[in-house]
Amino acid sequence: MIRFLDAGESHGRCLTAIIEGIPAGLKIDKDLINKNLLLRQSGYGRGARQKIERDRIEFLSGVRFGETIGSPITITIKNRDFENWLNIMSPDAQKTRKKSISMPRPGHADLTGYIKYDREDMRDVLERSSARETAIRVAAGSICENVLAQIGVDIISFVKSIGNVGIDSVDYNDKQLTKKIESSFVFCPDKKISDKMIAEIEEAKLKNDSIGGVIEACARGVVPGLGSYSQWDRKLDAHIAYAAMSIQAIKAIEVGNGIKNAYNLGSCVHDEILFQKGYIRKTNNAGGIEGGMSNGENIVIRAYMKPIPTLKKGLNSIDVKTKLPHISHFERSDVCAVPAASIVVKSVIAYELLNAYMEKFGSDTLNELKKRVSEYKIYLKDK
Amino acid sequence: MIRFLDAGESHGRCLTAIIEGIPAGLKIDKDLINKNLLLRQSGYGRGARQKIERDRIEFLSGVRFGETIGSPITITIKNRDFENWLNIMSPDAQKTRKKSISMPRPGHADLTGYIKYDREDMRDVLERSSARETAIRVAAGSICENVLAQIGVDIISFVKSIGNVGIDSVDYNDKQLTKKIESSFVFCPDKKISDKMIAEIEEAKLKNDSIGGVIEACARGVVPGLGSYSQWDRKLDAHIAYAAMSIQAIKAIEVGNGIKNAYNLGSCVHDEILFQKGYIRKTNNAGGIEGGMSNGENIVIRAYMKPIPTLKKGLNSIDVKTKLPHISHFERSDVCAVPAASIVVKSVIAYELLNAYMEKFGSDTLNELKKRVSEYKIYLKDK
Amino acid sequence: MIRFLDAGESHGRCLTAIIEGIPAGLKIDKDLINKNLLLRQSGYGRGARQKIERDRIEFLSGVRFGETIGSPITITIKNRDFENWLNIMSPDAQKTRKKSISMPRPGHADLTGYIKYDREDMRDVLERSSARETAIRVAAGSICENVLAQIGVDIISFVKSIGNVGIDSVDYNDKQLTKKIESSFVFCPDKKISDKMIAEIEEAKLKNDSIGGVIEACARGVVPGLGSYSQWDRKLDAHIAYAAMSIQAIKAIEVGNGIKNAYNLGSCVHDEILFQKGYIRKTNNAGGIEGGMSNGENIVIRAYMKPIPTLKKGLNSIDVKTKLPHISHFERSDVCAVPAASIVVKSVIAYELLNAYMEKFGSDTLNELKKRVSEYKIYLKDK
Amino acid sequence: MIRFLDAGESHGRCLTAIIEGIPAGLKIDKDLINKNLLLRQSGYGRGARQKIERDRIEFLSGVRFGETIGSPITITIKNRDFENWLNIMSPDAQKTRKKSISMPRPGHADLTGYIKYDREDMRDVLERSSARETAIRVAAGSICENVLAQIGVDIISFVKSIGNVGIDSVDYNDKQLTKKIESSFVFCPDKKISDKMIAEIEEAKLKNDSIGGVIEACARGVVPGLGSYSQWDRKLDAHIAYAAMSIQAIKAIEVGNGIKNAYNLGSCVHDEILFQKGYIRKTNNAGGIEGGMSNGENIVIRAYMKPIPTLKKGLNSIDVKTKLPHISHFERSDVCAVPAASIVVKSVIAYELLNAYMEKFGSDTLNELKKRVSEYKIYLKDK
Repeated sequence: MIRFLDAGESHGRCLTAIIEGIPAGLKIDKDLINKNLLLRQSGYGRGARQKIERDRIEFLSGVRFGETIGSPITITIKNRDFENWLNIMSPDAQKTRKKSISMPRPGHADLTGYIKYDREDMRDVLERSSARETAIRVAAGSICENVLAQIGVDIISFVKSIGNVGIDSVDYNDKQLTKKIESSFVFCPDKKISDKMIAEIEEAKLKNDSIGGVIEACARGVVPGLGSYSQWDRKLDAHIAYAAMSIQAIKAIEVGNGIKNAYNLGSCVHDEILFQKGYIRKTNNAGGIEGGMSNGENIVIRAYMKPIPTLKKGLNSIDVKTKLPHISHFERSDVCAVPAASIVVKSVIAYELLNAYMEKFGSDTLNELKKRVSEYKIYLKDK
Repeated sequence: MIRFLDAGESHGRCLTAIIEGIPAGLKIDKDLINKNLLLRQSGYGRGARQKIERDRIEFLSGVRFGETIGSPITITIKNRDFENWLNIMSPDAQKTRKKSISMPRPGHADLTGYIKYDREDMRDVLERSSARETAIRVAAGSICENVLAQIGVDIISFVKSIGNVGIDSVDYNDKQLTKKIESSFVFCPDKKISDKMIAEIEEAKLKNDSIGGVIEACARGVVPGLGSYSQWDRKLDAHIAYAAMSIQAIKAIEVGNGIKNAYNLGSCVHDEILFQKGYIRKTNNAGGIEGGMSNGENIVIRAYMKPIPTLKKGLNSIDVKTKLPHISHFERSDVCAVPAASIVVKSVIAYELLNAYMEKFGSDTLNELKKRVSEYKIYLKDK
Repeated sequence: MIRFLDAGESHGRCLTAIIEGIPAGLKIDKDLINKNLLLRQSGYGRGARQKIERDRIEFLSGVRFGETIGSPITITIKNRDFENWLNIMSPDAQKTRKKSISMPRPGHADLTGYIKYDREDMRDVLERSSARETAIRVAAGSICENVLAQIGVDIISFVKSIGNVGIDSVDYNDKQLTKKIESSFVFCPDKKISDKMIAEIEEAKLKNDSIGGVIEACARGVVPGLGSYSQWDRKLDAHIAYAAMSIQAIKAIEVGNGIKNAYNLGSCVHDEILFQKGYIRKTNNAGGIEGGMSNGENIVIRAYMKPIPTLKKGLNSIDVKTKLPHISHFERSDVCAVPAASIVVKSVIAYELLNAYMEKFGSDTLNELKKRVSEYKIYLKDK
Repeated sequence: MIRFLDAGESHGRCLTAIIEGIPAGLKIDKDLINKNLLLRQSGYGRGARQKIERDRIEFLSGVRFGETIGSPITITIKNRDFENWLNIMSPDAQKTRKKSISMPRPGHADLTGYIKYDREDMRDVLERSSARETAIRVAAGSICENVLAQIGVDIISFVKSIGNVGIDSVDYNDKQLTKKIESSFVFCPDKKISDKMIAEIEEAKLKNDSIGGVIEACARGVVPGLGSYSQWDRKLDAHIAYAAMSIQAIKAIEVGNGIKNAYNLGSCVHDEILFQKGYIRKTNNAGGIEGGMSNGENIVIRAYMKPIPTLKKGLNSIDVKTKLPHISHFERSDVCAVPAASIVVKSVIAYELLNAYMEKFGSDTLNELKKRVSEYKIYLKDK
């Protein structure tokens, strides 16, 4: 079983995660991790901060000479801007607070976090609830991607729509797909639509507003039989929904064509079974998951992201000190974080899939895992 | 913390659940539970089985003289049809299998379960993966509803659409709402639309097909501050998505207007904050959850259900023994289970919400829980 | 991962457990399970109840034609005496309580349970806290023993001492060991000492008193590398201590010669490493666990059991209604339950060991598990 | 619920822990934490390393202006010696290993860890399995102690014996007890016995040997009703045994007089109940836990520690590369770590007790927790 906890405030010293259970003997692909971190920071629509920071992973434990050794892995990402925030974010008791935030931003954790944790300054809340946290989740998920790559699984994610501009579908067999996605400023594989998406973001920016979108992710090469229908809490789609819904601003999750299918007849929805050197499907409306298990087809997930709740023009709110109406606090932010979130979606899926592999295959070392997956693939041919 | 495990095959002796952590001192409302069980069995579009069985809960432990005592609660629902299935489903070793199923139904767990658990007979799979299991989840969730009712929370659920027929929205302040829902054969509060839904089901039935739909659920009276943004796996929306996605045939989950919001601007989406004897919102696009926490507004969830994968006319599949094309196995089934699933959605939300209450309030007894919730409500007034 | 929850009151209708995660394809050895249940009921020193009941396992789910199918397993043991207790233990609301218990027995959960769950009648507490619950744990653990037997692991347990009568050590290579243990009325492999133990029990009985003892258990054939030093909560000895300390009346747990070793020098304690067709040890003071992992030697555990707290002659206590001194309540009980508890110790170790195997080897089917364990054993030869 | 993961190698850059669930509003007592860290490093019998390092906690997240804010807390302890170990412990891939360890130390994780994680160099194992890890557990546990102090609970621990020198019992009402313990070089409250213990250590040292001992810990002020008999895995003694057995070199755990009681009659063992402004006990043989719950008396735990397995004179072992006999590797170490371990025992108990409080009382803030505990204490008076 893989576990991880992460920690860190948006303007604190650093973000940290401890990841337990990664098999020993994995050569860490630091470049992949840093590339994912860079992609998360890129994407049209992000704010000024991303120019200040250039996130890079550091290993504080669990990796020796570039290889995992079976110990828990500590990773950290420095907040390069921390020095400028020391007066505001110091852990030390003697420092005194300069000013506090009392005008909650609708759509954020500000108001409820202030109540729940009985805080005086909403900064205590927004520093942690910020999507800055996803940087370390991307780093953790990228380590899982490292392992998955060794057992034949890769995950791709892209922006399907921003505002009202979007693409219908992509060809997952297109070998240029990743290249197309990464060469787009908005991580959309269609060049023309990408330009329109940028225009959509620009328009929102001019209005001092923000804008949402839809992300699609696809895991290829997953063996059938991950997850289980045996107990409600072991279903793979439930696990993926859990992880993806936990990403800041994601408010709906769809597996395969889950939404469209709800308006349709069974005969149009279910994916006919064929046999061609193994069981395959004519279509993939199920998004690769049936009965709470991977079925061997591509696992396709969509995540629906609301517009960022920090608006330059503010939103009608109140001041909790006076209870009188007040425009909400403005904190440095982005206009559109959908491209960034597409990287996070990929990462959390990597984590959940690897965990499902570990559940089925056990393994303390990468060699064990690889061997057991290979043997299972041989078994599949004969079953 | 509340935990539960459930067990039981569709045509086995019974369904069973053990629920741990329900506060002591709760007077069990057996009628509510049995009513929910009946509702789950009702709803237009269900098959012949529902006429054979009339599910009723029995308490095997944890309840004494109608009251919980702090011990784990065992509940069971008998499968009244079991006697007729004894030759097929006997746990005893000496019994021999009559015939086995080898033609998997696309959309079900049949094929992957057969592979994963290396079975010869797909009945070993379909008996457990069947949505029959949701009966016991409804019973368990109904006990949670019992507790929630004592602390001012009620949950309502209804069918929003079946196939292409649906309603736009409901008025959650309508005091007749529950009555309207329960008096509809399809659990839709709008009489006219209900009739159209029934027609939609009839049409699918005539085609020997099945049909999907959308369910909406709303929890009222939830205090702000359940769940937490503190760690990714503590977010309330993630927990609810987990539980709801674990329901058979549910393939997408939406919190509030999560899907529509993804196509919109921030200024149109976020719910302005007002103060009127407490913090309230002008709108509820967030569906009562911000920053992974309940915000005090109604918690609104939508679940998208695919059509049942058992079709009378069958689907193109193969026979795993010969690998040759074959129409899929037919197992007694329904044409439309969306009304039934609406009860299940309510139940799993009850479970997740109660768990979130227990996390925040602890409590070994109902009195403790009630008192602590009351005190928190007083605190809310002054914060 | 294996999980289980159990439930049931001592004089309720039945005990129940749901066990999740047992590999598919296991032929259940019902005789082994029932034998363990019988042994738990036997043993010199047990009270009248054991003559009334003859515990037998029933499978309500998860087993078909004598074989596990991957679904959760529900097992139940009827309380044959329940009919006589219906007026006292009925789950139905209309029944009224006859009389309530208000004189707590020191050493039992009575007083604290009454406080914690805010009960009026201590029967609400003692019915669940009773060691009757261990019957179902033995049944669950016996299923784990079934699986372990298939991968070359067997567990033996015996009574090492009762009161001041005991044996020093046993020879785990003695092929008659199990037979000797089971032919003793007190499950002690030494015939003469067994007789002295019986005399010790008789003496306590004459005094209307109760008496404690020490249990030793040994798991043979466990591969090295179960558990992990990687994270504090993954250590195998910690898991075993957790499970064994959770048994009613067990108040100390020792791994290997853990107590004696604490008074000794390192050079006398640590087990020298040799190589003879694999790594072996000259001694086994560590009890087969080093660094929180099995090391390939016998895993040896001792559990220290206090005398049963229900004394025929009673103990000085109070009546909670009056707060005045009163002799404690007497509930039908045993004089010595050490032999019975030795079966429970074996069962909980079986559960923890199987879980540790599942963590390392994964596996949805018994065949997978067997194959992976075999391959690991081959790997061990070359490492 | 409190959770924590820790990480870090003995000679790596640092130790790190992430702690989730500490209530907001706690003023961190950094001095207490650093004092515990210092005590862990002190104690007669420790090796040279403790003079190089002076462990100090740093907060990387979760604390702002000296106060917890509800976010996960990251703590770190630098390994000051790391610069000298960079060539050996570098996480970077380009660095090459200088030399590897192949002669496992009996009693350590060396051999099994090398097998389990399929390593070439046993340093990959011993760096993590080292008791150096307990430094960060002490830091994490000290934060829990901070919280417990606010709700009237304090924990004391001391060395009961080293080798064959020990004390019988201590007076927990002695107000000088802590002072006496901390002024002893071996953390034993008896001055004369302390001197004898030191002599015992000196003797072992002269022999290039190591020596074990017994630790006792006592938690005072714990309310009755923590833990539960309801489910096997919720028992407080089981949780404490789990945590304490997970400490390196601890091989037996005793609750109260658990070992002595196993040789005795019930009438001599069970603690009679009296009423004097609340329920109290005449004796405390149960060590404050009955039925898996705290009963309001002092919680008394003993942990039995084996001698450190790193001996200056080495132990008979083999070289895994040649399989030939070889004296075990020597790694800088201590002669006796019992005093150090006594601090660790205190810390893990603090963690488990706070978790048990959080389970019963919930609470997001320290104020909530304090208030609920107070109200429970009022309730106790009347029950």
